[in-house]
Amino acid sequence: MPVNLTAPDPASLLPVAGVRLGIASAGIKKPGRRDLTLIELSPGSRVAGVFTQNRFCAAPVTLCKAHLAHGAIRALVINTGNANAGTGEEGLRHARQTCEAAAGLVGCDAEAILPFSTGVILEPLPVDKVLSALPVAHGDLAPTHWSEAAHAIMTTDIVAKGASRQASIGGKTVTVTGIAKGSGMIHPNMATMLSYVATDAAVATGLMPQLVKEVADVSFNCVTVDGDTSTNDSFVLIATGQAGNSEIVAASSADYAALKAAVSEVAVELAQAMARDGEGATKFMTIQVEHGRDHAECKQIAYAIARSPLVKTAFFASDPNLGRILAAIGYAGITDLDVNALKLYLGDVLVAENGGRAASYTEARGAAVMREAEITVRVVLERGSANATVWTCDFSYDYVKINAEYRS
Amino acid sequence: MPVNLTAPDPASLLPVAGVRLGIASAGIKKPGRRDLTLIELSPGSRVAGVFTQNRFCAAPVTLCKAHLAHGAIRALVINTGNANAGTGEEGLRHARQTCEAAAGLVGCDAEAILPFSTGVILEPLPVDKVLSALPVAHGDLAPTHWSEAAHAIMTTDIVAKGASRQASIGGKTVTVTGIAKGSGMIHPNMATMLSYVATDAAVATGLMPQLVKEVADVSFNCVTVDGDTSTNDSFVLIATGQAGNSEIVAASSADYAALKAAVSEVAVELAQAMARDGEGATKFMTIQVEHGRDHAECKQIAYAIARSPLVKTAFFASDPNLGRILAAIGYAGITDLDVNALKLYLGDVLVAENGGRAASYTEARGAAVMREAEITVRVVLERGSANATVWTCDFSYDYVKINAEYRS
Repeated sequence: MPVNLTAPDPASLLPVAGVRLGIASAGIKKPGRRDLTLIELSPGSRVAGVFTQNRFCAAPVTLCKAHLAHGAIRALVINTGNANAGTGEEGLRHARQTCEAAAGLVGCDAEAILPFSTGVILEPLPVDKVLSALPVAHGDLAPTHWSEAAHAIMTTDIVAKGASRQASIGGKTVTVTGIAKGSGMIHPNMATMLSYVATDAAVATGLMPQLVKEVADVSFNCVTVDGDTSTNDSFVLIATGQAGNSEIVAASSADYAALKAAVSEVAVELAQAMARDGEGATKFMTIQVEHGRDHAECKQIAYAIARSPLVKTAFFASDPNLGRILAAIGYAGITDLDVNALKLYLGDVLVAENGGRAASYTEARGAAVMREAEITVRVVLERGSANATVWTCDFSYDYVKINAEYRS
Repeated sequence: MPVNLTAPDPASLLPVAGVRLGIASAGIKKPGRRDLTLIELSPGSRVAGVFTQNRFCAAPVTLCKAHLAHGAIRALVINTGNANAGTGEEGLRHARQTCEAAAGLVGCDAEAILPFSTGVILEPLPVDKVLSALPVAHGDLAPTHWSEAAHAIMTTDIVAKGASRQASIGGKTVTVTGIAKGSGMIHPNMATMLSYVATDAAVATGLMPQLVKEVADVSFNCVTVDGDTSTNDSFVLIATGQAGNSEIVAASSADYAALKAAVSEVAVELAQAMARDGEGATKFMTIQVEHGRDHAECKQIAYAIARSPLVKTAFFASDPNLGRILAAIGYAGITDLDVNALKLYLGDVLVAENGGRAASYTEARGAAVMREAEITVRVVLERGSANATVWTCDFSYDYVKINAEYRS
């Protein structure tokens, strides 16, 4: 069951001037399932994205990168039910056909379309179904369909994920609305993560790649690992420029900072929602590693803990078997780590110091924290001033069930 | 259920001249459980070991390393039920007390004792129970107690693990007998792996560290990852020199090769037994990566596949969801890998080539292989002549159950 997570009230997902969304049922995997989403952007919108590092990147990801390099983007097409990954030349052809069909409807070049797919790998995309349903999605376009789109991009997600924020930038109210899918934060490569965040703020084209990367680093990159990604992971940021603010042209400006804060808030909420809705999740865990030498070593230790099946099953069992966390810290790969210097906290409870169990620690105090639905594990390295945070969830019977039965 | 694995017939575990084993019930975790093993070696035995790389290495591991550096070893003491890890200064004191007590019984210095512990981490070793039971274990010493020892060192293992081989070296029959415990090869950091292999061959002291490392690299290091180990992992090789062969003094000699072959056969059988008895295992998987540039990249890809929870749950479900294997190859971290050049086989069935599903592949052929209890996944990289093999098992409900309930 998702941990403290419910689908957003549709009314809470604010329209973004210049963005319209349309949904259709292409029947890609199951008949009747709303599995195709078209997102149309007004001319002049600026778009940037970050994508999977997987060497088997999916055909649509290959096209996305090429089209973003090419120029202005006018629409995004997202299908669920099939990832169009591990599909070779045929997969690229299918993704191109999808772009051409969408371009015909929107009235632009095929290069102005970004295609996305999520679902099973290594099976051909039933492209005819996509092409048949695209006109229906186009006919459904409306600025208010964010909630419908959040539902339509789901795969093993239980709860639809969306968030909105508003900020005042240069005296104008700017809106940021985003949706995401992904429930595989048990291990970062579980399932494809897709997220689309749009704002009506005006932002210089040249700033967009920096903004999307900076936001990803404090949000989605805290639930997934570089090099340990799915074939299709994508996070796309859209700025339509319709809010009427003076175009943001410098990363050092207050306006950039204000927009980045609002976009980051949306992205963090979506990223955390993926961990809360992690496959089989019963606990939401925040792993904070503090006072390290640099951010990289903190993140490495945080991930070693967050990914350990032994740690995650102990949290599922609400069992304060905390030695498993120490073992994970020990194998994180920090060869000069002094394990006698670090402190381990579970919530506010000091668990370990001086290389062993803290004198003040009792099983009862540990067990009380373990019973909570949201738990913070804090590791204080005492060797610097850097820190890192990773969000994850526990590891349950249902994780195995979901992944053993997916596809069948 | 362990995959094609039964406990060795006690009579098949051949005595090794110069080695006696004794068992006792110390009641460390459960009353009545035979949880303490003493292995006594004749004077002049040569001993070498390889140990966990974990920064939180357990107190007994610290002492083992110091005592091996110090000189001749006369006995090993192994307890289950408690790992004496994450126990700080007190843990070292407890391990030293254990060595002193064993030394008193054997008649040697405390530095001639190697202590080993396996079980729960971060809880104090009930050293008084160990000290009380040691004389019982000493009274039980016999050359024939290998099977009893194989049982006494188990933790979550379902099946006891032991193997023997004989070889003719310099006209003398040499015996090699080994035992191991460990059932956590789902992910290599699951559970402590301990293994003790003894031979009566005469081997020069200086060759022992090389021999133990070379054997580990083709056996135990194919089911576990450097830096991803438990706090207590240990593999110890003993050579008592009682077989009457001329002492093996050169690694280039035929005698060295013959002994290494026999010891490796025992170690490989024990290592594979750990994967066959992997926590919750229903399938035994061999991952072979071939025609890579070097052994390191082959091993990196083999481990990415062997460790992927998505791959392992698909094998549990006998679901040929083979795109998950491609995804794991893709995120293994080989940045210049040409995914269009590689071939993926499931058993003898060609699954993928040219970046997509092979034309000859059918779901029925894949499903037929997936129903087997022993499955080989073969990845042919087509970019060199190196290769690597990793053994693992699938990932089932019972894995979660075992690790959620362990300790309680």
